[in-house]
Amino acid sequence: MSICEVLRIGHRPERDKRITTHVALTARAFGASRIYLSNPDSRVIKSVEEVVDKFGGDFSIESTPNPKKVASSSNLLIVHLTMFGLPIDTKVEDIITEGRDILFIVGAEKVPAWVFELSDYNIAIGNQPHSEVAALAIAMNKLYPNSYNTEFDGKLSVIPSATHREMKDSS
Amino acid sequence: MSICEVLRIGHRPERDKRITTHVALTARAFGASRIYLSNPDSRVIKSVEEVVDKFGGDFSIESTPNPKKVASSSNLLIVHLTMFGLPIDTKVEDIITEGRDILFIVGAEKVPAWVFELSDYNIAIGNQPHSEVAALAIAMNKLYPNSYNTEFDGKLSVIPSATHREMKDSS
Repeated sequence: MSICEVLRIGHRPERDKRITTHVALTARAFGASRIYLSNPDSRVIKSVEEVVDKFGGDFSIESTPNPKKVASSSNLLIVHLTMFGLPIDTKVEDIITEGRDILFIVGAEKVPAWVFELSDYNIAIGNQPHSEVAALAIAMNKLYPNSYNTEFDGKLSVIPSATHREMKDSS
Repeated sequence: MSICEVLRIGHRPERDKRITTHVALTARAFGASRIYLSNPDSRVIKSVEEVVDKFGGDFSIESTPNPKKVASSSNLLIVHLTMFGLPIDTKVEDIITEGRDILFIVGAEKVPAWVFELSDYNIAIGNQPHSEVAALAIAMNKLYPNSYNTEFDGKLSVIPSATHREMKDSS
């Protein structure tokens, strides 16, 4: 699988703490290698690092004082997920054809204009308001099918079951 | 498209306000007709009803004092989304073959045992911890492909664009 990273824009620590945590955990579970947060938030970083510590994988989370610089200095293909963008199903083949590693940008409520301008693709998962978590999951699933089935090497792992909750702890 | 509904279990108003709002908006945007919340939360209901008022569609949100009764008295096929379940890709054809309308159950951190017992399918979108918002989006997308492209009849609608934010207001 290609490398992909996520840049989370406009994170407001009090309001967005749990949504940003879900964005980060979705990024990890669907195969991203890193997420950048536009504002420092030690609680989000701690929650995500605890999951990595228990469940494994090679995923990093860091805050950046300058998200615009992260985007403008990145040599990855920039795909901004926004309800205002073009329908993903009209663009997914083009994105795959580019054959490049991807930096996804996901915003909180309203992103600054530079995000639209710097992005190679402004892409919508439908044009209704819903969730950056849902948008990231669908976009990653379309670009990296079944990546959520990746096995990690963690101390903890789930034993899939039709009927109950079961985990293996190899620590 | 079949009817589907969502039951949100274990909603804790302070902690889960925004995640539950994202679950509800994802349910609406991906084609569900209704969401039940396991605990009353007027702020979540207000946020979701404002979106329905502006963007249209026929989606309702209500709280229920007894989520177990909603599930046990439902005649819909019950699909519980959980990281402990069986991989969705091994079950999606079976679920489609059932040809029934679906009640999705999505929990907060830990759901009571009755959810596993009452559900017809306990299904995982990968077995890593991530997000009930991501899980619902992927499950709905697999069962109702492209349902997120449904057009609503709202006063507000987005004009999809490769470069900028644009809305039509027909109110």
